[in-house]
Amino acid sequence: MKKYFYTCFDCDRIFDKDHVEKELIYLCPDCRTVEKNQPLRGVLLINYDYDSIKIKYRKADLLKLQPGKFWQYGYLWPLEFENGMLKGFDEKLLERVSLGTNCLQEYSYKGKNFLVIDDTRNPTLSFKDRASSLVALKAMQLGIKEISAASTGNAGSSLAGICTRLGLKSRIFVPKNIPEAKRIQIQSYGAELIIVDGDYDLAFDTCLEIAHQKKWYIRNTAYNPLTIEGKKSAAYDIFIASKGNVPDLIFIPTGDGVILSGLYKGLWELKELGWIEKIPKLIAVQAEGSNALVRYFKTQSFEYKPANSVADSICAGAPRALYYAHESIVKSTGDAIEVSDVEIIEAQKFVAQNYGILLEPSSSASFAGFKKYFHSNKIGAETALLLFTGNGLKDISALRIWNKDVEPLGANHIKEKQ
Amino acid sequence: MKKYFYTCFDCDRIFDKDHVEKELIYLCPDCRTVEKNQPLRGVLLINYDYDSIKIKYRKADLLKLQPGKFWQYGYLWPLEFENGMLKGFDEKLLERVSLGTNCLQEYSYKGKNFLVIDDTRNPTLSFKDRASSLVALKAMQLGIKEISAASTGNAGSSLAGICTRLGLKSRIFVPKNIPEAKRIQIQSYGAELIIVDGDYDLAFDTCLEIAHQKKWYIRNTAYNPLTIEGKKSAAYDIFIASKGNVPDLIFIPTGDGVILSGLYKGLWELKELGWIEKIPKLIAVQAEGSNALVRYFKTQSFEYKPANSVADSICAGAPRALYYAHESIVKSTGDAIEVSDVEIIEAQKFVAQNYGILLEPSSSASFAGFKKYFHSNKIGAETALLLFTGNGLKDISALRIWNKDVEPLGANHIKEKQ
Repeated sequence: MKKYFYTCFDCDRIFDKDHVEKELIYLCPDCRTVEKNQPLRGVLLINYDYDSIKIKYRKADLLKLQPGKFWQYGYLWPLEFENGMLKGFDEKLLERVSLGTNCLQEYSYKGKNFLVIDDTRNPTLSFKDRASSLVALKAMQLGIKEISAASTGNAGSSLAGICTRLGLKSRIFVPKNIPEAKRIQIQSYGAELIIVDGDYDLAFDTCLEIAHQKKWYIRNTAYNPLTIEGKKSAAYDIFIASKGNVPDLIFIPTGDGVILSGLYKGLWELKELGWIEKIPKLIAVQAEGSNALVRYFKTQSFEYKPANSVADSICAGAPRALYYAHESIVKSTGDAIEVSDVEIIEAQKFVAQNYGILLEPSSSASFAGFKKYFHSNKIGAETALLLFTGNGLKDISALRIWNKDVEPLGANHIKEKQ
Repeated sequence: MKKYFYTCFDCDRIFDKDHVEKELIYLCPDCRTVEKNQPLRGVLLINYDYDSIKIKYRKADLLKLQPGKFWQYGYLWPLEFENGMLKGFDEKLLERVSLGTNCLQEYSYKGKNFLVIDDTRNPTLSFKDRASSLVALKAMQLGIKEISAASTGNAGSSLAGICTRLGLKSRIFVPKNIPEAKRIQIQSYGAELIIVDGDYDLAFDTCLEIAHQKKWYIRNTAYNPLTIEGKKSAAYDIFIASKGNVPDLIFIPTGDGVILSGLYKGLWELKELGWIEKIPKLIAVQAEGSNALVRYFKTQSFEYKPANSVADSICAGAPRALYYAHESIVKSTGDAIEVSDVEIIEAQKFVAQNYGILLEPSSSASFAGFKKYFHSNKIGAETALLLFTGNGLKDISALRIWNKDVEPLGANHIKEKQ
């Protein structure tokens, strides 16, 4: 049997990998729904022959690896390997897209310890590098040289940076309210930047339309099956860094739901392989102004509302991976909660001033959610892990709110002050 | 004999470590010169019993370690260890100050390959974390809770972030032209920020004056012997990541000369231990507007000139470690060169657009220097390594110069454009 195959999330139909990859099929042809301001239908998942993997590979060997280099365990990635090495790449080339150290850090809030996995120090300073790397490596193995993506900023700057590191061309579609530092990051990497006169949802649809016409490879989140797949690497990094003792609860900043879906996918695989006993409860944390998944979790019905929050990276009126993200929460017996913009900024400030980690607002949502859960007495002896997904320097405007400029003091003034 | 001792760079006098550390002596009492706009005299270096280390420890064991965690080889650090662990710290606490992955990346410029060690993804996104971590860990072992520093921005944001991660208080003195993102980074970490009405040299002197009065521990670069010592970790990371095959040339952005000095110190130790055969040639790269070391290298005389360059992090009219930095260049048979602000910005753009790495201007100076050297036919078959020392997002203003805002396009416009 082939190393892996594609499965439709909605109808469970199985697709041969060569067919999908040769034809560049992104969604299930039967279930495919790509409608304006709607979650996607027909998302494809990648599955492996877990029974064979279980026999051939050992948990103990995986645990010996260094986090952040997913190509070390090639049997779990939809890429071609030869003699244990990613075909066509040497170690120094791969080092260019190696993630941050990603070992677990531990901090404490009001006596309750929590763990952090820090993706703010990835190559382009966000979690999105996990998906961009896999998409770009796959593109290179397929002989593709140009990749496009719609983005609120991070996925785009990530794709732009990763593509340049690997010698590919990228084209990025962004909403007009993109934070300046993210726009500049995308441009700096030499990507073509297209700003649409509207929000992320418009950028998403416009990107698909033009990219299909121009035959560019598309990295749009959830749309390209390798985005969920790439993000599953976080599950393996947590597994490796925790020496196999995965936490009980994981708090995840959630917009499109792809980080959540990818994390679940990886944890599900680890359970399938018998390498963990229980999947941690996944807690989606959304901004009040972009809470489609929270509403869907309560009512099982989706209703589009334009998204609006200071946490621009998790603004998504129509979460593209809504259905798989929802299933991930349900199957992990997790939860979906929302936090206000005020709570998000307070969390950003608290994390910076108490733990010395500068997060962008979307990223500090995970702490705001953890804090809310903690104060609702919903965490007892359970171990909690927070995903820190984007660096604070990617959006100075949010930091300006609580860091005012200071009057310079002359030497004489300083002396007087004493 | 004691594990280590302090030696004056100028008079070679040896000082007992307990005396130096109990009395908080920063400079040699005999040679000490701290004058406005002058390099320091009496800088203390830390020396170990290399003959014993050589017998007790093996090169092969050091090469097995992971770069970025200097406390793994405790025999080379002025800290207390117990059962192989840093006394008073567990692994999870140390993980908070663990550096970036710091494996070597390889890129190519006009057919010439070069290596990069990427310090732009350290905890606060700059090389300065190497010194701040060692200073902060030492402070904690000495029972000190407050640390002060003068900084052009990076050393300050580094100390602020590292202190907060470890539960210490910091007070940072900066010049009034500090880039906004760096100011905000310092403030965000909860440090006390003092802006002086002048340049870095004034900030340095003001910090010393007030800190001594208030009895705060001082991290000022070169002044505190642990800054040069902390920066030597880069030499060990290069040694480990290159599997013992250190490069022939290393290009180093240079302001105060402490990175250069620290790097030399580490390489000198590796040679002293017999673990490398030859010290790489160290090439200091300065900005034309802040070129005191270049002038000293030519004339052996120091003359103060106010520093002015777009590369704010390497602006130092009076390089504090001038004399040791100069000796490092001479003993490594290296060089000191200068690049213009235009070359620095061009290098920033080139590195971002071709290698996908966003550097701040001071950091791209190393590439500008490498390029200049290359085009002067001064690099043949020699292997070259560049230090990338600070992340581009620490100073958006420089990136604004070559990344203009883009007009948003409505969906219709985009269609028309096709």
